[in-house]
Amino acid sequence: MRISELSRLSEVPTATIKYYLREGLLPAGQRTAATQAQYDDGHLQRLRLIRALIGPGGLSIAEIRGVLAAVDDPPESPLELLGQASEALGPQGSTVDDSAAEPAADGPGAARAREILAAIGWQVVEGSKAFTQLAEALEAVDQASITLIDGGVQRYATVLAELAAAELDTVPMESPQTAVRQAVLGTILIEPLLIALRRLALQDAAARRFGNDDTPLP
Amino acid sequence: MRISELSRLSEVPTATIKYYLREGLLPAGQRTAATQAQYDDGHLQRLRLIRALIGPGGLSIAEIRGVLAAVDDPPESPLELLGQASEALGPQGSTVDDSAAEPAADGPGAARAREILAAIGWQVVEGSKAFTQLAEALEAVDQASITLIDGGVQRYATVLAELAAAELDTVPMESPQTAVRQAVLGTILIEPLLIALRRLALQDAAARRFGNDDTPLP
Repeated sequence: MRISELSRLSEVPTATIKYYLREGLLPAGQRTAATQAQYDDGHLQRLRLIRALIGPGGLSIAEIRGVLAAVDDPPESPLELLGQASEALGPQGSTVDDSAAEPAADGPGAARAREILAAIGWQVVEGSKAFTQLAEALEAVDQASITLIDGGVQRYATVLAELAAAELDTVPMESPQTAVRQAVLGTILIEPLLIALRRLALQDAAARRFGNDDTPLP
Repeated sequence: MRISELSRLSEVPTATIKYYLREGLLPAGQRTAATQAQYDDGHLQRLRLIRALIGPGGLSIAEIRGVLAAVDDPPESPLELLGQASEALGPQGSTVDDSAAEPAADGPGAARAREILAAIGWQVVEGSKAFTQLAEALEAVDQASITLIDGGVQRYATVLAELAAAELDTVPMESPQTAVRQAVLGTILIEPLLIALRRLALQDAAARRFGNDDTPLP
């Protein structure tokens, strides 16, 4: 198909498609004339994937390039594969102001993260981005003096460990390509789903507790 | 204390503190001379809060202004209060490229979101940002052809409903100020904690399943 047809089917403007082509996110089409190229279903799939990663995934162009590289050329071991899924990403919202992140390696957040991980007995890579993110998140919760739920961080950890085991069951192991695709994209695209559901769950819990009468606070 | 002392205690550069003062995120100090002002513990607390929101929270200056306005001048009803907490925020990562978000109100994601919410019986505001985020997240999962865990979206929803009820228990209802503070900050700062824990849970699950021998994929 021509680029105009690709644009129509994907609902992505031609100028944006050309930008993705220039950035190397989308492979070049089959050239048919000096100024014309043909695109196929693979281009359409890839385009939909890029839009999913940019939109709800909230990834930068650089992060998408890293993710697509992992999808196109997956690592050999399953463990490395899963690691790559989370390392391809910065912390949530990191694009805003990376400099604001404290160097967490030896801060109080890192000590607290180590303590919690030891208590729950998780095997994780201490130098990984996710570890730094945990340390920073714990420090922020602490600095803002938020009260945690009964059971604290460990309660969240228990729930997420159960979900992680179930998510791992969805990773097809027949081929590295399909495995890395599910692992990387699952990591990225389930996150916005979780966040949206959590905010709606809070709305529902509040509506149930306080009803619609809008009784003023004491 | 002087601004230099405030900078030392908060580990925030003086230039950054002055920027927050100019942006109105931080209230002005008590002027003691033409070029000097005194700051107190309230300024230090507010500064730590701003840093938590910018760093792990990943909020933009505009979003922080909205959040701080809610904290400073909370709404009267508990329900409105909780709503404000999630409405103060854009979608996760929205700062990257808002234009990439499809108009979801009548897309397939919105229909799917309505269907799921009806099945689980949540009372949520359909026009809310969180609803749009759910619709977009569902569309992204669908477009990327990710396999969901056994039980699908409803399994995530069940888990998050339990956590939401527990989180609501932590909101102190003695005063609107303390309530909105916990509700708003809890919504924002627990999210990065959940995301970090989920990525680490996936690392741990993978390490358990595949061990450290790094057997290549078939």
